[in-house]
Amino acid sequence: MKIDINSDIGEGFGRWRLCDDAALMALISSANVACGFHAGDAVIMTDMAAQARARGVALGAHVGLPDLLGFGRVPMKIDPHDMRKHALYQLGALSAIAKAEGYKVTHAGTHGVFGMMSRETPEYLQLIFDAFKAYDPDIIVPGEPGSPWQAYARKIGLRTVGRIYADRAYEEDGSLVSRKKQGAVINDLDQIAARASQFLNDGTVTAITGKRIKLDAKSILVHSDTPGSVEIAKTLRDTIERGGGQVTPLTELVE
Amino acid sequence: MKIDINSDIGEGFGRWRLCDDAALMALISSANVACGFHAGDAVIMTDMAAQARARGVALGAHVGLPDLLGFGRVPMKIDPHDMRKHALYQLGALSAIAKAEGYKVTHAGTHGVFGMMSRETPEYLQLIFDAFKAYDPDIIVPGEPGSPWQAYARKIGLRTVGRIYADRAYEEDGSLVSRKKQGAVINDLDQIAARASQFLNDGTVTAITGKRIKLDAKSILVHSDTPGSVEIAKTLRDTIERGGGQVTPLTELVE
Amino acid sequence: MKIDINSDIGEGFGRWRLCDDAALMALISSANVACGFHAGDAVIMTDMAAQARARGVALGAHVGLPDLLGFGRVPMKIDPHDMRKHALYQLGALSAIAKAEGYKVTHAGTHGVFGMMSRETPEYLQLIFDAFKAYDPDIIVPGEPGSPWQAYARKIGLRTVGRIYADRAYEEDGSLVSRKKQGAVINDLDQIAARASQFLNDGTVTAITGKRIKLDAKSILVHSDTPGSVEIAKTLRDTIERGGGQVTPLTELVE
Amino acid sequence: MKIDINSDIGEGFGRWRLCDDAALMALISSANVACGFHAGDAVIMTDMAAQARARGVALGAHVGLPDLLGFGRVPMKIDPHDMRKHALYQLGALSAIAKAEGYKVTHAGTHGVFGMMSRETPEYLQLIFDAFKAYDPDIIVPGEPGSPWQAYARKIGLRTVGRIYADRAYEEDGSLVSRKKQGAVINDLDQIAARASQFLNDGTVTAITGKRIKLDAKSILVHSDTPGSVEIAKTLRDTIERGGGQVTPLTELVE
Repeated sequence: MKIDINSDIGEGFGRWRLCDDAALMALISSANVACGFHAGDAVIMTDMAAQARARGVALGAHVGLPDLLGFGRVPMKIDPHDMRKHALYQLGALSAIAKAEGYKVTHAGTHGVFGMMSRETPEYLQLIFDAFKAYDPDIIVPGEPGSPWQAYARKIGLRTVGRIYADRAYEEDGSLVSRKKQGAVINDLDQIAARASQFLNDGTVTAITGKRIKLDAKSILVHSDTPGSVEIAKTLRDTIERGGGQVTPLTELVE
Repeated sequence: MKIDINSDIGEGFGRWRLCDDAALMALISSANVACGFHAGDAVIMTDMAAQARARGVALGAHVGLPDLLGFGRVPMKIDPHDMRKHALYQLGALSAIAKAEGYKVTHAGTHGVFGMMSRETPEYLQLIFDAFKAYDPDIIVPGEPGSPWQAYARKIGLRTVGRIYADRAYEEDGSLVSRKKQGAVINDLDQIAARASQFLNDGTVTAITGKRIKLDAKSILVHSDTPGSVEIAKTLRDTIERGGGQVTPLTELVE
Repeated sequence: MKIDINSDIGEGFGRWRLCDDAALMALISSANVACGFHAGDAVIMTDMAAQARARGVALGAHVGLPDLLGFGRVPMKIDPHDMRKHALYQLGALSAIAKAEGYKVTHAGTHGVFGMMSRETPEYLQLIFDAFKAYDPDIIVPGEPGSPWQAYARKIGLRTVGRIYADRAYEEDGSLVSRKKQGAVINDLDQIAARASQFLNDGTVTAITGKRIKLDAKSILVHSDTPGSVEIAKTLRDTIERGGGQVTPLTELVE
Repeated sequence: MKIDINSDIGEGFGRWRLCDDAALMALISSANVACGFHAGDAVIMTDMAAQARARGVALGAHVGLPDLLGFGRVPMKIDPHDMRKHALYQLGALSAIAKAEGYKVTHAGTHGVFGMMSRETPEYLQLIFDAFKAYDPDIIVPGEPGSPWQAYARKIGLRTVGRIYADRAYEEDGSLVSRKKQGAVINDLDQIAARASQFLNDGTVTAITGKRIKLDAKSILVHSDTPGSVEIAKTLRDTIERGGGQVTPLTELVE
């Protein structure tokens, strides 16, 4: 059983850092690097690209809103066509840095806020995915299994990989439990390990209702800015390896 | 006689513009597009790439300091190795945008302030040129004929094209007359035409001392933020075409 | 009849300018100066404060969203309590600059986008007005006559002045005609003069339906970033002065 | 013996933080708050002002270069007259926030880089101090004892307090040992305590040569971004209080 551990990473800026990126990079198999809009700068991006290359971690662009102050988390009614251009800008910036480090961007995705913004205005994710495709038709787009965005990515010919969250509870329909509800976030390392173990064994997650649901995923996301993110990634890696699984970059998990 | 008219362009940001970029784009044959650090943003860059493609204008990245407020003109003691990474970031950003528009960045250069900063710390231009080379060994670097930077570019295997200034006076040694001296800047359109005509005929410029000097150049720069820049470009184009010359992109002027 | 000509002003940044601020400052009687968030910087703000003082123009802070790229026009779901703090920051910044120039901020207002954002989330304008009050209870808040925001300002004890738009059509209920409808924007200088003249004579505006409506206002706004804004301001000033009116700063129009 | 413990604080931005500001605020008696140029934002500044008020900590503005990416530490040849305006902007922004929190900015100072920049161009610190004076003649300026900047502040009528560094070694002439020399930085808590104790007893510091020198100071600075800054502040406070001293805000230490 091959599975990817994926994390948003490089989310510092200038003098600031959000987590121990090097410790996290040693545990994951694919990295979504912030590209200077919601976080990240060329110095950090270069460091991330070099570390990813050294460890064989798949390198991805984590595209965000142009809002450092809000860490890209504040929904804004930016023109979707403008945002497409900002996405290309970010993807290209990381690609050039990767190339000079002898490496390559092989996947791309968007900051969580675009999921929210796209429920009302689907053009956001559609145009960003179009931009990914225009830049590199081989780019991989990780996404929530069964989401309309994964369907859209496939429709335009992009390869996708289903991705689940290590630290979030699910509804029976495969959607995430709203953060406003109790039990939405899972912090307990034992519980995280047990859920990862179950997913490895039979591809299921126990929804918040108690029912087991199938999720078509090969990647598990760790939020790097969650307190204890390094411990969560370590727990996942240990669970996968003890269960006979193999932590594997996204690039080896698409057909 | 083939000669390039080159201009820094796309030097707006968000709601702001510095000149009539479309009018200028119609007159020049190579464009140095601001990449979001000293000016420019993804929306403007996309517009510039699309216009350059439509008109067959060679597209270049105009790399700047990370300082919108100072328009990249304020010398700063940024770490040269950091600046190398910021240069890659900018070049990659424009390259991705160009690619999605069905076009390509074929030259790259730096904002004037790096010339000043490099007199004291040559690593600035050296590391930025190294970055250009690492990203694309075919990239063309326009530069002042006989300058150490042109020599460095050639040394590392980059193709260069000599470039002179339409609106600046020269010393006998081929260096620019300091802006602090009288006569440093040439605004008069007739004089600009006469100088261009002379350069086309015999490859010389009359230095401020009155002596004719040879300059090994195939490109003439117009500063887009000079008042009257569109008129200057028009004067140059008319002079070249009336003299039997041909305004030709940089890409056709390198061996 | 005393009436104020009011304009958003100082809407450049660094190297960029949106209009001829000095020409506009010579025609108006109250200035809303951008404070560095959507536009403006300390150098421009100092220039605006000095010019306002020299001409006896009332000086106001024009508070915006923290978004230079979007010129503060892109609605964003920023936390209203955070925005209150950003408003104080901007008001204080201009106040210090004014004080050092021997002058004073006497009014304050918000960028148009807050009107839109406040229809859904009234806390935006309420908290910003609370901030104005906390900083200076004597501050004047110009606003649309009859709007809930004007009512809120009065409720918390701030002095207000009704303000109409020189270049916008009105519905019968005193609201602005949506920019999406034909005839929403009025560009014709003769028409602007005729409307100003009518307003001076009897305090009415002819709504888009043809009906005359009363508007309780003593200030007329010119958008400085409208093409021809200086001409519009000149037309207004001429119309007022020829009609025997007196262009008068806000500070002399509140009780 | 009354002495001030002073610290640069609030040096986060948006989602980022540099140290545990609340823990540090509980130990110090005067706070230099970053004002949004090299670090800090209105939300953090409000938090700092509220905490300072709650704890009776003197509140100061820590003025920086307009460079978030470089944390204000990269020397730049910004026009000193422009920088004066940027300093006013920052001081005013914090003052408004403080006022709305029922508190007041009583001191102001500059980021360390201005000391370096002012050795070559004294106008930087002179013009910034002029700006402080223009805004509030009662403002206190902490500074290195015997430095030309302290002399300048006094010359223009500003009150000053001498300040020494808890974690830096001194030359015999009272200047700081260059960071390039061994022993320049003192990390050991016991040594920091011993030096503080000696300074409290007789107003001397042992220079790196072994000679005791007198320093006319009533304030000790802790760099908040030094690893272990909270521990250093705690050591200082304990040392002062055990020695019978009293940790006292700057405002009570000037005549």
